[in-house]
Amino acid sequence: MRPLIGFTPANLGIFKLAFSHKSNPSDKAYAIQNNERLEFLGDAILGTIVAEYLFKKYPNSNEGFLTKMRSKIVKRNTLNKIGDKMGLDMLLQEYSQTRLSRSMLGNAVEALVGAVYLEKGYKATKRFVVRRILRNYVDVHELESYDDNYKSQLLEWCQKNGQTVSYKLVARYKFEKRDRFKVAVMIDGKKLATADDFNKKSAEQTASEKAMLQLGILVGNGDNDDDDSDDDSED
Amino acid sequence: MRPLIGFTPANLGIFKLAFSHKSNPSDKAYAIQNNERLEFLGDAILGTIVAEYLFKKYPNSNEGFLTKMRSKIVKRNTLNKIGDKMGLDMLLQEYSQTRLSRSMLGNAVEALVGAVYLEKGYKATKRFVVRRILRNYVDVHELESYDDNYKSQLLEWCQKNGQTVSYKLVARYKFEKRDRFKVAVMIDGKKLATADDFNKKSAEQTASEKAMLQLGILVGNGDNDDDDSDDDSED
Repeated sequence: MRPLIGFTPANLGIFKLAFSHKSNPSDKAYAIQNNERLEFLGDAILGTIVAEYLFKKYPNSNEGFLTKMRSKIVKRNTLNKIGDKMGLDMLLQEYSQTRLSRSMLGNAVEALVGAVYLEKGYKATKRFVVRRILRNYVDVHELESYDDNYKSQLLEWCQKNGQTVSYKLVARYKFEKRDRFKVAVMIDGKKLATADDFNKKSAEQTASEKAMLQLGILVGNGDNDDDDSDDDSED
Repeated sequence: MRPLIGFTPANLGIFKLAFSHKSNPSDKAYAIQNNERLEFLGDAILGTIVAEYLFKKYPNSNEGFLTKMRSKIVKRNTLNKIGDKMGLDMLLQEYSQTRLSRSMLGNAVEALVGAVYLEKGYKATKRFVVRRILRNYVDVHELESYDDNYKSQLLEWCQKNGQTVSYKLVARYKFEKRDRFKVAVMIDGKKLATADDFNKKSAEQTASEKAMLQLGILVGNGDNDDDDSDDDSED
């Protein structure tokens, strides 16, 4: 654990818990002894540390810019990549009882931040997040110019090229007790790509990104090479 | 300022800024020197402090419960009431250049938390929020049992009584450069109430709450006596 967090935890249990994905969500006692509560705490703390980091880094930017930048950093896809680069898959494999999915990586980042906070308090967690996560794995300047609204980008491209774009709900199903949506993006009525997510809007964004990759109109922002493997099924 | 925050600020400017609502959002320099950046920071910090407070108060509750409880505490309507009870209207009147609106009260709570954080750091802000805000103005146990999903409550009531409920977008307009929506709630096709908000879902919730008040089916949770005065226009 020490190479990852920079200190030897006094309470190793809480760090093990950070990487313990529940195998049986209906078991109430077990549901509490997994990483979801830590994710809840870590998500809040990570969001605040990133907010403060941006607040100080951009003293002349307004609230709209700061909000947008923050959501680019703490969004699921970015956190999944950070967890991947940190090598959290090894720890998840050791402590979890389910098959690894990509979104577990981002969740583990949040849970880890929650565990560091419980052990070390806010100041030390801020140092951990800024030095070991933001500086190592987040290119803030790249994110500044990076437009992650794939739906609007695709719409703009279609309008320029006289084509129509539409979205279709292909399936709605339960995954780990939550509603999950499969959405298809259609160009001139032809299905180009599908994506799954827990809300339709996010699924449409991911489907639009895939469509743009297929059309060859998404160019180098380093965020495309590495698509969410959960969403790769086409039907 | 001392009676409000419990200490004499070294940097009074930042506290004045917390209550300075912009009068001219198009003036870029001015837009940065107002309370919006502080709101951004304070919103994050308040959310984290509430998250930690709930995490520790409910050691046996799962993430879903904690998330729901947190959103009940930090939602706009609750923050507006907290700001009201704290008497922030006096300070807003002193430092702002626009007519007071109810949502400015909640924003001022967030901005104040941001200012306390910049002056005193996380630990002291946590003390401030828990002792001076949560303990004084938030009844956590009441919130536990309190269902704030007015849309689903109204739908349930209508289904029981053989009536239909629907929502209609009455108007869409710009307010301080942001899209704002006026939504009407219709029972059996008859308009019962309208509400305005920056997103349709929130407007539908507020309109549903008003409709339930009119129908006399919303009973004592202490959250009804005090409707958002911004949303009172009926057309």
